[in-house]
Amino acid sequence: MNVAVLGYGTVGSGVVEVLTENQDSIDVKAGKEIRVKYILDLRDFPGDPHEDKIVHDFKVILEDDSVKVVVETMGGVHPAYEFVKDCLQRGKSVCTSNKELVAVHGAELLSIAREKRVNFLFEASVGGGIPIIRPLNQSLTADKILEISGILNGTTNYILTKMTEEGLDFDTVLKDAQEKGYAERNPEADVEGYDACRKIAILTSLAHGKQVDYEDIYTEGITKITDIDIKYAKAMGTSIKIFGMSRVTEDGVIAMVAPFMIDKAHPLFPVNDVFNGIFVKGNMLGDAMFYGRGAGKLPTASAVVADVVDAAKHEGTTIMTIWSQEKLKLAPIDGAKFRRFVRVRDGFNIAGKFGNVTVLEPQAEGEKAFITRPVSEADYKKTAEETDGILSMIRLDFKGQ
Amino acid sequence: MNVAVLGYGTVGSGVVEVLTENQDSIDVKAGKEIRVKYILDLRDFPGDPHEDKIVHDFKVILEDDSVKVVVETMGGVHPAYEFVKDCLQRGKSVCTSNKELVAVHGAELLSIAREKRVNFLFEASVGGGIPIIRPLNQSLTADKILEISGILNGTTNYILTKMTEEGLDFDTVLKDAQEKGYAERNPEADVEGYDACRKIAILTSLAHGKQVDYEDIYTEGITKITDIDIKYAKAMGTSIKIFGMSRVTEDGVIAMVAPFMIDKAHPLFPVNDVFNGIFVKGNMLGDAMFYGRGAGKLPTASAVVADVVDAAKHEGTTIMTIWSQEKLKLAPIDGAKFRRFVRVRDGFNIAGKFGNVTVLEPQAEGEKAFITRPVSEADYKKTAEETDGILSMIRLDFKGQ
Repeated sequence: MNVAVLGYGTVGSGVVEVLTENQDSIDVKAGKEIRVKYILDLRDFPGDPHEDKIVHDFKVILEDDSVKVVVETMGGVHPAYEFVKDCLQRGKSVCTSNKELVAVHGAELLSIAREKRVNFLFEASVGGGIPIIRPLNQSLTADKILEISGILNGTTNYILTKMTEEGLDFDTVLKDAQEKGYAERNPEADVEGYDACRKIAILTSLAHGKQVDYEDIYTEGITKITDIDIKYAKAMGTSIKIFGMSRVTEDGVIAMVAPFMIDKAHPLFPVNDVFNGIFVKGNMLGDAMFYGRGAGKLPTASAVVADVVDAAKHEGTTIMTIWSQEKLKLAPIDGAKFRRFVRVRDGFNIAGKFGNVTVLEPQAEGEKAFITRPVSEADYKKTAEETDGILSMIRLDFKGQ
Repeated sequence: MNVAVLGYGTVGSGVVEVLTENQDSIDVKAGKEIRVKYILDLRDFPGDPHEDKIVHDFKVILEDDSVKVVVETMGGVHPAYEFVKDCLQRGKSVCTSNKELVAVHGAELLSIAREKRVNFLFEASVGGGIPIIRPLNQSLTADKILEISGILNGTTNYILTKMTEEGLDFDTVLKDAQEKGYAERNPEADVEGYDACRKIAILTSLAHGKQVDYEDIYTEGITKITDIDIKYAKAMGTSIKIFGMSRVTEDGVIAMVAPFMIDKAHPLFPVNDVFNGIFVKGNMLGDAMFYGRGAGKLPTASAVVADVVDAAKHEGTTIMTIWSQEKLKLAPIDGAKFRRFVRVRDGFNIAGKFGNVTVLEPQAEGEKAFITRPVSEADYKKTAEETDGILSMIRLDFKGQ
């Protein structure tokens, strides 16, 4: 079975490497010989062992009917979307690692794939090498999914872990992460939570079978987390993580990306460094968690190639994925209640604003910190707007008592 | 689509409950209406809401060609094996939670299913509600699996967790676990590691595509772990867990069940109480871990019902599972090297027997404890046999430095 790879960057070259390196075992598992015929890239790669497979014209791939599976690892919505759509319409299965493409056009591309009896697969778009798309789709089918909380971005988890372990502030750690290549020169997509937002949009769409638009998801990054917040977290034996989270509440499904303070009983507590972890709660299953490398060349390529194997095994049939283009109406987060960790300047009238709170042992001069009872987003926002002196607020997600 | 359930015990009644409770979402995901037509049990259940479905004669189910999927939750090899084989040969798919049946006859039953174009599925046989069979089969197909280490038995994990948290000895905690219903009155299958042994046999068979007989797996339980061992583990910031483990070594695949001392960097470190966790290392994926409830009525039933949904979605085709009846030749563990935690009586000549070791801060009178360099099973056994004074030995599996 011939495969073409669109984009010979980090993940694309990883896909070729995995297909070559594990060729024998992959052929057995796919039940057929899987070979890379073309690699599409604008650049040439003189001296590369796969140099002869490089093409610059997408049409060569599109019009070669011996190519049954196309791997899309270019990233970005355009021209990935047009290329993928063309391939599906031409009767080729597509496997992609492109979270943005999937978040925006996933439902439509799945429907084209179904119509053409091919497959559109995207295991690598969330959680890198961690199997999470296929488990949600095929393993947790007996359950109603009540909650998904995911550490979905390795860069921000690395930064928060280093801040915790070394007591450093955000800017210092970010600079170090950039020097090590763990963070981009323009780190916005990671540190502002945009990357995690697209990923929780995909997971929530799959969990509920309807389209969740990422623009509708409240998103808060980690740039305001300080070393003093971390000091308090450590003193309490808790940890600060940024989650993509969606949860079934009385008002409907809420979704958000934000930093959360979690306790030791939380299954995501031990997920550190660049690792990702995805916590899923089903109404029958209870708590489950999936852990692994959320990024990186070979782990991500491993997930893409597993999709290629699945596409090979399902030639002529479409793996059922419930994700309609109908929009899932998210409940506004205004009503969502959280206990909150709050730091305020000395002299702030805590009881007058937040009622009964648990005051914490001070970790810095000139300020106080406390834990509130559950306070809704709307109520908190109102208080924060009417008041001067709040230094920081982090929502709590404690799974223990 | 009509379903029959064999055995109306804990898991069987859970299956009926999940199918009833989540009927609407399950029907959507399966793409057809899934209904329980029969429940086979020797007993009657007067007053049970599903009383009218109880039958006592297996033939009623076997000969009703409207029953397309049979759930086997009786446990034990006989008559489960005969019933399952008859169903498959009659063209019915079978979903089972029966680890013993799968460990012994899995490869054969898969081959009958393939021949009859039906499915034999067993997600619930390992790790209860945790998706692990399907991920191994369908998600980790790009990888060569280098290691599987699983906390596969909730009873023993509960006992070790309580011994650690409360500093109690094995017998006291076992008695408490029996009173709470977490351990059987005859706890041998759990505490001697036999249950974990069958489960690691299944996982290793799937990882390598060939039959691993559980009788060939070295199995050591937790009955010899004392509160003093636990004291040392805690003092070192480590933890003692019983694993089913298989690993690709230079000599081939080794498999064993035994208590291991693990460090904080080990992904299984935070897996406590009755929870299970399965660590998998792929040659491309790197480290991954799956965590959740390894037992219990509804989590296990959730996994069985996910199989029922998969069987419904794949009516007329067989999901490819690579597990041949050809035997995987396991390497003898004699050559397997481990660092070891060893406790000896005062006066024992450590250097004369184990060379350079790291001596630990004493936690009990009249004895010494130390960590050895990597020592093979054969060498350790020889030393232990030639020597008087070894009080205990636990292998190390440290993932950090």
